[in-house]
Amino acid sequence: MKVLHHPDRADIQLSSVLYALSDPIRLYLVSELYKAGERACGEFEVPVVKSTVSHHARTLREAGVVNVRIHGTMRFLSIRIDDLEARFPGLLMSVLQAYDSSGEPAFPS
Amino acid sequence: MKVLHHPDRADIQLSSVLYALSDPIRLYLVSELYKAGERACGEFEVPVVKSTVSHHARTLREAGVVNVRIHGTMRFLSIRIDDLEARFPGLLMSVLQAYDSSGEPAFPS
Repeated sequence: MKVLHHPDRADIQLSSVLYALSDPIRLYLVSELYKAGERACGEFEVPVVKSTVSHHARTLREAGVVNVRIHGTMRFLSIRIDDLEARFPGLLMSVLQAYDSSGEPAFPS
Repeated sequence: MKVLHHPDRADIQLSSVLYALSDPIRLYLVSELYKAGERACGEFEVPVVKSTVSHHARTLREAGVVNVRIHGTMRFLSIRIDDLEARFPGLLMSVLQAYDSSGEPAFPS
């Protein structure tokens, strides 16, 4: 079975987390995951092709922001809340609050 | 006199701010500016050439993170704390706290 690499908690870097969150679509994915808990990669209603979602999921995973669980042909994403909270207390919450209040469009028209 | 463009408060985008903060050297510059208030571009003790500092300063300015004031041949940087705080309350503080506690090296050896 294919095993995806996830950085250990201690290896999660602030700059990498901020970079992973610096894209409107990735911010949207993380915001949706925060509400939903866990979601399949194909479940997000985004106007981009599946491979683009996969690419964003990989960026988030490699930065330590999300966990990706493989089940059959599907990939399930969830936020590594405990790890992020232990590493950078309050950071994820303040980014999500900023996102909610910013009105920033995830999908520029 | 050359006037540098700074985005209006309302036009500061979360994804751009996070991107501007997603680089170890830019995080270091912002952290130093937060302690110092205002500093000249050439004052930072960073192991990169002046043009690289200028480039980072530009990224931070264009994202709305810093104000750049030109005085003679010098450029003075300061964080747009009031604008960032009004736009994304608590965000800058949580990033700076995460930076302080992360022990992330600004200058990887």
